[in-house]
Amino acid sequence: MSDHTVGPEIERLIQLLAKLPGLGPRSARRAALHLVKRKDQLLGPLAEAMAIARDNVMECERCGNIDTVSPCTVCTDPRREDSVLVVVEDVADLWALERAKASRGRYHVLGGVLSPLDGVGPDDLSIESLVERATAADVREVILAINATVEGQSTAYYLTDRLVNCGVSVTRLAHGVPVGGELDYLDEGTLAAAMKARTEV
Amino acid sequence: MSDHTVGPEIERLIQLLAKLPGLGPRSARRAALHLVKRKDQLLGPLAEAMAIARDNVMECERCGNIDTVSPCTVCTDPRREDSVLVVVEDVADLWALERAKASRGRYHVLGGVLSPLDGVGPDDLSIESLVERATAADVREVILAINATVEGQSTAYYLTDRLVNCGVSVTRLAHGVPVGGELDYLDEGTLAAAMKARTEV
Repeated sequence: MSDHTVGPEIERLIQLLAKLPGLGPRSARRAALHLVKRKDQLLGPLAEAMAIARDNVMECERCGNIDTVSPCTVCTDPRREDSVLVVVEDVADLWALERAKASRGRYHVLGGVLSPLDGVGPDDLSIESLVERATAADVREVILAINATVEGQSTAYYLTDRLVNCGVSVTRLAHGVPVGGELDYLDEGTLAAAMKARTEV
Repeated sequence: MSDHTVGPEIERLIQLLAKLPGLGPRSARRAALHLVKRKDQLLGPLAEAMAIARDNVMECERCGNIDTVSPCTVCTDPRREDSVLVVVEDVADLWALERAKASRGRYHVLGGVLSPLDGVGPDDLSIESLVERATAADVREVILAINATVEGQSTAYYLTDRLVNCGVSVTRLAHGVPVGGELDYLDEGTLAAAMKARTEV
């Protein structure tokens, strides 16, 4: 888009929208057009919502969650269990677990997984602060809710190793058949794991 | 997303992002997270670009293009031919033709196609203003660059009918094999049209 039909204002909007995950240059153009056609209903409100988020949203100094306060609402919620620490790769995983109401414990966002090929070592993740939090007297269990990818699993092994002297039990999420999932579409590793971990009905 | 993990600021951002074409609830969440993690590089600039677009972008009173001035840059460009009027359904089509440098004429944005099932009649499109512009002394050709859909084609027939007494020649885009396209993937209608309109090499 370097033609003179689209003014620099729209051009800039398109370029920035194209940086969003899930939007390429073409869909960014469509989105920009959609926005400028709906100035009052969408473009204006979105500009404001973004300005508000920019001015108010921050990372929780304790767990790495994203919120308007730090420590975040989850960290300060008195109804949550201090004894359980759920370790996730990313804030998106934290949100997913919260939507599923999967845990009433606290969280710890690693900020990624170990990946020697991409130059991500232990110092690039918030592992020291995790060990520190896990050492606290009231923490009894650390749940590694890390993605079941190769890198995620090797990160989980590394963390288990680091947490072995913290006086906590280290657990991980169960492998198995997704609820509502069809066996025919599942990979063999998942099926084998689900079979191995079968439970009595 | 009605949990208390995500504050109302982020919740609102997600809801608005989900209204963009190409983003669903899940990808809107991903986009929101992507944005709040990149406050200075992306969220801030995008908020500003949107505010600027909201305050400056308008619809061209003459052709329906979107620009920061009205009449728009294309309508006032002295290097363009006043004798040719390219009729498009939507601003996106205008942009596409401009990117392709397909025409040096002026444009006319219909704002949609006739669709009795959806309740879109001639009065809902800018057809009167098209007839008026086509009647002007200097316009010699009206190119119907309307999508080759069923509704687009019936709109084209309707327009041809309306323009018959305007003293202009009415043309439409050629059908044929897309440049770089493989015959094997093309539908039969396109192939038949391309064969019929074959040209000597």
